[in-house]
Amino acid sequence: MTNPRADRVRDVAKLAQRSARQRRGLFLVEGPQAVREALRLDASRGTPLVTEVYASPACLDRYPELDELATATGALRLATDEVLAALADTVNPQGIVAVCRYLDTSLDDVLARSPRLVAVLCRVQDPGNAGTILRAADAAGADAVVLTEGSVDVYNPKVVRSTAGSLFHVPVVIGVDGDELVARVREAGLGVLAADGYGVVDLDVLQDESAARRLGSEASGGGNGAGDSPSSYALERPTAWLFGNEAQGLSEEELALADARVAVPIYGEAESLNVGTAATVCLYASARAQRLDPGLNG
Amino acid sequence: MTNPRADRVRDVAKLAQRSARQRRGLFLVEGPQAVREALRLDASRGTPLVTEVYASPACLDRYPELDELATATGALRLATDEVLAALADTVNPQGIVAVCRYLDTSLDDVLARSPRLVAVLCRVQDPGNAGTILRAADAAGADAVVLTEGSVDVYNPKVVRSTAGSLFHVPVVIGVDGDELVARVREAGLGVLAADGYGVVDLDVLQDESAARRLGSEASGGGNGAGDSPSSYALERPTAWLFGNEAQGLSEEELALADARVAVPIYGEAESLNVGTAATVCLYASARAQRLDPGLNG
Repeated sequence: MTNPRADRVRDVAKLAQRSARQRRGLFLVEGPQAVREALRLDASRGTPLVTEVYASPACLDRYPELDELATATGALRLATDEVLAALADTVNPQGIVAVCRYLDTSLDDVLARSPRLVAVLCRVQDPGNAGTILRAADAAGADAVVLTEGSVDVYNPKVVRSTAGSLFHVPVVIGVDGDELVARVREAGLGVLAADGYGVVDLDVLQDESAARRLGSEASGGGNGAGDSPSSYALERPTAWLFGNEAQGLSEEELALADARVAVPIYGEAESLNVGTAATVCLYASARAQRLDPGLNG
Repeated sequence: MTNPRADRVRDVAKLAQRSARQRRGLFLVEGPQAVREALRLDASRGTPLVTEVYASPACLDRYPELDELATATGALRLATDEVLAALADTVNPQGIVAVCRYLDTSLDDVLARSPRLVAVLCRVQDPGNAGTILRAADAAGADAVVLTEGSVDVYNPKVVRSTAGSLFHVPVVIGVDGDELVARVREAGLGVLAADGYGVVDLDVLQDESAARRLGSEASGGGNGAGDSPSSYALERPTAWLFGNEAQGLSEEELALADARVAVPIYGEAESLNVGTAATVCLYASARAQRLDPGLNG
């Protein structure tokens, strides 16, 4: 394709708008890393995910795996840099743009798989923050990411970009009501923690208690129940973490739904942490406690 | 002030450019939170920091503490929203803009205060990442942040904004050569860790070993030297962390300078972590190990 003003190009470019995405159930994926992850997922599941791939010959030459995966879809079209620039939301899509079907799943599906770590974005609005949390959730081995009603659109090109491919690794659930979500995850056996800068429970205390339980039980021969420290919440439990809107944090209603309001400790003078940063610390703390718990591993 | 085309307004607005900042040794601070932190620091030190403050009456009405601090400088001028928009780098400076003197300090000053936790940005280029790391370093109680030659300008308005005031909390050193820096921090008794996604040392292993030493020594009556696990690096040591450029990571030369190359473990499928996210996890791990070490606290 050489004409950046072709109808097809215009149709794809419209996917930068939420209304067009929602009408067609399709979204844009840009750049070699994100497109490769989309194609890998496409290749591994039964139903097709990637409906179109546009790439420059130079990009395919440079990334042979991408070339192979894209060719295998039967939906690859060579395109000039001008066409690629017109298709993409970014000025420089680095030679490749794909169109994908929506891939969010249902809360039922997620809960049926007995998740142990779930990140819930409660009205998080900034695309970069949402993407950072999704990427951190993937890194921490979370089983799902849920975006409640009123959160940024996970298919916004800025969110897709900032997940750096993690959107294709972690099951995502969107448009859920917060109250209903909490009730459902509780039924599924998960505890619920609210990340809250004003929380009275210190994340480090939860980590200390969890470590003490583990080392206590190891010392007593690998049994369980040997922990003797008073625990407000056992961090090694299957857990859904609630993360709030960047300006307002979690609402009183959301906070009231949680088993505990947990603050990441601030050792310096910073007033608060960015929600993406706080979420990273919280998810890694849970992942570490769960991994180390002798009752759940080995 | 009511004329957005006045010479004074133009002069201030030029501080969005690096060349103007460097020539004059001044930078822009925008928004109530950042300006308040600048004014608080200004009020607490001997040499003046804030040279000019421009604010709308509405903003001063809304933030009485800001009004008081700004008035006390003797450098407050009321301005219209049009003037404020013309002064600032952002479209909406939320009613207040200040001009500050450069506040970076020397490596000598930092090392003279026996720092225990230092974050080193090695050619980090993205303003948002640099700001996130500075904010996380502040939250984790780091004693200084160092930006090596070739890093983003810490006085770039985007960096200043994304630090959310932490630029005025943590001593910052700029323009240092990486080799020299490492030699100097070693002389000052700090160990050096490289955050490296390909590192062979797992951050969780360092945390486990540190926790085991602590609990071991507590069990033996608070003595020290009771740790019996093989340690590649004692996380409770005073430490300088090296964080690399977002695209290239740390160079082989930089990696070779470190005592260990440490990876934040990836439990899921994510290929890597954003440098800001990785830095947060690393700095918090050190802060926690240092805080808990009985040899250094209580």
